[in-house]
Amino acid sequence: MTTPSALEVIAGRRSTRRFDPGRPLPDDLLRRILRFATLAPSGFNLQPWRFLVVRSARNRRRLRACADGRAELTDAPAVVIVLGYHHPQRTDLEEVLARALGLGAITPAEAAEARGRAARAVEAEFRPDAATRALGPAMMAAATLMIAAEAHGVASAALEGFDVGRIRRAFGIPDDHSVGLLIPLGFAAQSPPPPFPGRLGLGWVCFEEHFGQPWTLGEVEDSF
Amino acid sequence: MTTPSALEVIAGRRSTRRFDPGRPLPDDLLRRILRFATLAPSGFNLQPWRFLVVRSARNRRRLRACADGRAELTDAPAVVIVLGYHHPQRTDLEEVLARALGLGAITPAEAAEARGRAARAVEAEFRPDAATRALGPAMMAAATLMIAAEAHGVASAALEGFDVGRIRRAFGIPDDHSVGLLIPLGFAAQSPPPPFPGRLGLGWVCFEEHFGQPWTLGEVEDSF
Repeated sequence: MTTPSALEVIAGRRSTRRFDPGRPLPDDLLRRILRFATLAPSGFNLQPWRFLVVRSARNRRRLRACADGRAELTDAPAVVIVLGYHHPQRTDLEEVLARALGLGAITPAEAAEARGRAARAVEAEFRPDAATRALGPAMMAAATLMIAAEAHGVASAALEGFDVGRIRRAFGIPDDHSVGLLIPLGFAAQSPPPPFPGRLGLGWVCFEEHFGQPWTLGEVEDSF
Repeated sequence: MTTPSALEVIAGRRSTRRFDPGRPLPDDLLRRILRFATLAPSGFNLQPWRFLVVRSARNRRRLRACADGRAELTDAPAVVIVLGYHHPQRTDLEEVLARALGLGAITPAEAAEARGRAARAVEAEFRPDAATRALGPAMMAAATLMIAAEAHGVASAALEGFDVGRIRRAFGIPDDHSVGLLIPLGFAAQSPPPPFPGRLGLGWVCFEEHFGQPWTLGEVEDSF
């Protein structure tokens, strides 16, 4: 397998519109892509992302009906529904700590400290909105997933437009999981890939020191 | 510059706890990292991320006071406050389309269609919650930023624990921008980097076809 550089992969990734419906995604590639997605960061390493992987043709049709009929969802052989779980600090912390202890990454004293702090820190102190708290790391995992897919030669897309309530009902997603993104995965039927549509300059999206204070550090000349 | 592979970068990234306070981050590296962050995907290419870059020692101290006194925020020479802007469809669409037209990535007819659909699709049809809608792409940009930093040899961390209201007041962030994450950037004072704390297995975080339906595709054996 070729291993393109991280910067080439980030710059070369495009959201694919036309997937090849005749080309399946091998299980091994799907597993590896999901595994790399789990290497995203999260507070207390609580990993609140969940990945609901839809591969049956029937379920992909149901999903497409929840998302404005987007053809990517039935053309691509697999779709990952990225979810954010609201309460990992209540149910997953012991498993997270046990794994870190098993790897020798933390000491028993550090585990005890995390046990004492995690629930309080996560739930009470800073970010009372459970949905927002869960979606942040889930969306970081989603971006990591797409970059890892691209690095494996697998095409993806980021679909944000969907009817959340309808997806919940169709796939049994409970209220304590937020729905973040739909990511079709497969192989592009487009060659060459879609052209780069450009991005706003740094002067448009960056501020210095205080909100609204103009960016003076200049732009990056590039030819992505 | 060495260009490590995307998979090495994703697997090798750690959230750094101890930054070298004596080593500044060159402007050119900061610019490049932010530029790569903007290559994340977003619906209609609306790019709702905003990056408030804090470098003055005084402002980093103020930021630290908003975030449980975390030393990373004053040790690291730069901190990016990642924001999600709620209404890019109202203010940025023309600029986005003008750039895509200038690059030849879309036709005038496609621009006209996007102009007609974007505001309605973004605001009304699917995701009525503006904060969630903005934070999703912003957090994908945040993950891309950290991967790009790692690829440039720059250490980062993802700090989720902070007092949102206090940061808003200290840095003048208006209500139509959500605060997603604090990312200190710099060079690690730790060598070797912190050990890998492990991740939950795919069987813990993945489902097949329907929420709660167990994962049968197995795990990935690795040694990150």
